[in-house]
Amino acid sequence: MRYKPGYALGKGEMELLYAVVLAGGRGERFWPRSRESCPKQFLKLLGERTMLQQTVDRLAGLVDPEGVFIVTGMEYVDLVRQQLPGVPAGNVIGEPCGRDTAAAVGLGALHVARRDERGVMLVLPADHYIGDARRFRQVLAGAAAAAAEGGHLVTLGIKPTRPETGYGYIRRGGPYKTFSGVTAYLAEQFTEKPDLERAAGFLAQGNYLWNSGMFIWRVDLIRRLIGELLPELDRGLRKIDAALAGGEAGPAVEEVYPGLPKISVDYGIMERAPNVLVLPGDFGWDDVGSWTALERHWETDAANNVLDARGVFLDTRGCLVSSPRHVATLGVEDLIIVDNGESLLVCHKDRAQEVKKVVQALKEAGYGNLT
Amino acid sequence: MRYKPGYALGKGEMELLYAVVLAGGRGERFWPRSRESCPKQFLKLLGERTMLQQTVDRLAGLVDPEGVFIVTGMEYVDLVRQQLPGVPAGNVIGEPCGRDTAAAVGLGALHVARRDERGVMLVLPADHYIGDARRFRQVLAGAAAAAAEGGHLVTLGIKPTRPETGYGYIRRGGPYKTFSGVTAYLAEQFTEKPDLERAAGFLAQGNYLWNSGMFIWRVDLIRRLIGELLPELDRGLRKIDAALAGGEAGPAVEEVYPGLPKISVDYGIMERAPNVLVLPGDFGWDDVGSWTALERHWETDAANNVLDARGVFLDTRGCLVSSPRHVATLGVEDLIIVDNGESLLVCHKDRAQEVKKVVQALKEAGYGNLT
Repeated sequence: MRYKPGYALGKGEMELLYAVVLAGGRGERFWPRSRESCPKQFLKLLGERTMLQQTVDRLAGLVDPEGVFIVTGMEYVDLVRQQLPGVPAGNVIGEPCGRDTAAAVGLGALHVARRDERGVMLVLPADHYIGDARRFRQVLAGAAAAAAEGGHLVTLGIKPTRPETGYGYIRRGGPYKTFSGVTAYLAEQFTEKPDLERAAGFLAQGNYLWNSGMFIWRVDLIRRLIGELLPELDRGLRKIDAALAGGEAGPAVEEVYPGLPKISVDYGIMERAPNVLVLPGDFGWDDVGSWTALERHWETDAANNVLDARGVFLDTRGCLVSSPRHVATLGVEDLIIVDNGESLLVCHKDRAQEVKKVVQALKEAGYGNLT
Repeated sequence: MRYKPGYALGKGEMELLYAVVLAGGRGERFWPRSRESCPKQFLKLLGERTMLQQTVDRLAGLVDPEGVFIVTGMEYVDLVRQQLPGVPAGNVIGEPCGRDTAAAVGLGALHVARRDERGVMLVLPADHYIGDARRFRQVLAGAAAAAAEGGHLVTLGIKPTRPETGYGYIRRGGPYKTFSGVTAYLAEQFTEKPDLERAAGFLAQGNYLWNSGMFIWRVDLIRRLIGELLPELDRGLRKIDAALAGGEAGPAVEEVYPGLPKISVDYGIMERAPNVLVLPGDFGWDDVGSWTALERHWETDAANNVLDARGVFLDTRGCLVSSPRHVATLGVEDLIIVDNGESLLVCHKDRAQEVKKVVQALKEAGYGNLT
């Protein structure tokens, strides 16, 4: 099935673009707003549309909804279909269990390849913030043009604005080419989350970019590299692909998936692949990894509080308060206070990354129904 | 009307004792558990019975329920009657507005005097914690015997255990007499809430006691002293008394009460009266003035938390958590987290005394319905 191309790439050449949106996360660090039954990507954390909806919305004009695939947990397939009525129901791909991003990307790639064996696919997490969607699309179009050559894996790197220890970094090498006005550079090295000293060093050196977790490549290239670098994953995917060719992949996915290696795209592919390009992005990006990320995007008051609750907040500084009920605070600082109507979290901001520990502790204490 | 005497005072001499329980407080510092519709004294903050019920319960054997009068806000009269079915309904005296403790005590004294013009009355706040009720009754019996002489106002002084700045202090003079094994001392001076340095000095000197707000006197003496020291209050009370003689004081109380001087017993009477005795109490006392008081009486965990909520509490120290819902905390210290199901308070412990400011701020912000 061919659909109307959505975007003109480069010098009048028309390409079809596909997007594989990764919507399998559990968003535990956003507990108690994020729940197992409705993780972060399905919440309206930033605006009137959910994170997933915003992810697809901002592809408008670049990727046709029929070219958007969503890979998500089996239990969220219906929710995704409800949230994205414009995306064909068959494009929502359920994973029976989470096997990290390499498997999810591989599964998405099978579906893209059935449309176009040499199609360019964008891999986009469903829960990122993008400040300037127009610029984002420009950079993606450049990345797609770079990927369309067929010789490179392409990723977007974010110009760092602080010595963030929660992100991976990419060392940018020399320029490769400019595509649609966006320069692609050789990606020399991927670095896992550094400590603060190292992160500060990266920031000072100026040639490091944050690893955005967004990838662009031709589907034939990624499939070949999966075959070379992750042969076990490749074997599993081939079984699923054979079932897809027969029209019904469900049972094969159920059978194969639990045995797939659990490895990320970054670790399994990007860090080991040759010929990776990185396009620096300057479109305002955040992975919205924890509650503290929201204060970068929500309105703050004069005392640097983010207040998503009615009430009074006396001598309260640097707090994030989100509750459907009325809240009063007095003499507190740097707290995350989030109430979903059923459960209440009070957490020091410095510990925002560890909210998933709370979720784990609740399960162990027999309160799994709250998570 | 005479009732069966409840207690033998001194050497075989039987006296009738009356109690006037002051239950007019608003308990704002216990918001959001304490509400205008149900202040602290009507809550089960310490045990299975409400503070008011415990106040009356612990008089068992000392004051007959028919000799117990409760002075409270007009709006709480029904609530008091529900909570104290053993106390005659007519003993529950409603104030149309709060005029501080001198007026409340004076109003109670009128009712006591109608039973016995020379009766001994105990004045007891409805919201205090008493650890050892048996010892408390012994000290009260001694105080009643001292008061029965008719020449002294008597108060209970609490042996201080910390340099508390939230209480008034009484300087104890020389011994006067011993009653039922309890020594009464001359009370030399009343001091308002001191600063920390002064409080520490009082503690070191050893002859200072906390002003418990509990008083014992003969009703004829207190009425005479009101006449001498608070003539304006006395005139109002006489009007009410005349109406009481006619059988129905309600309209007179409504008319007179708003014009009564707003002054405390301590300031209006005790600090200015001659011949005040103080009996040191060692029965475990606390005025339960704020949320932090509860940690002295509730069970604490190894990290000094008071946890009246289900949930998980990770790296949490010195916090008081009370909620009908599930709570999770992470990396927090010295917080009061109280949730009444409708409103949530998060307050630093050092600010516990200021919770009434929160109540005021809520009213000003248009959230008076939450207070």
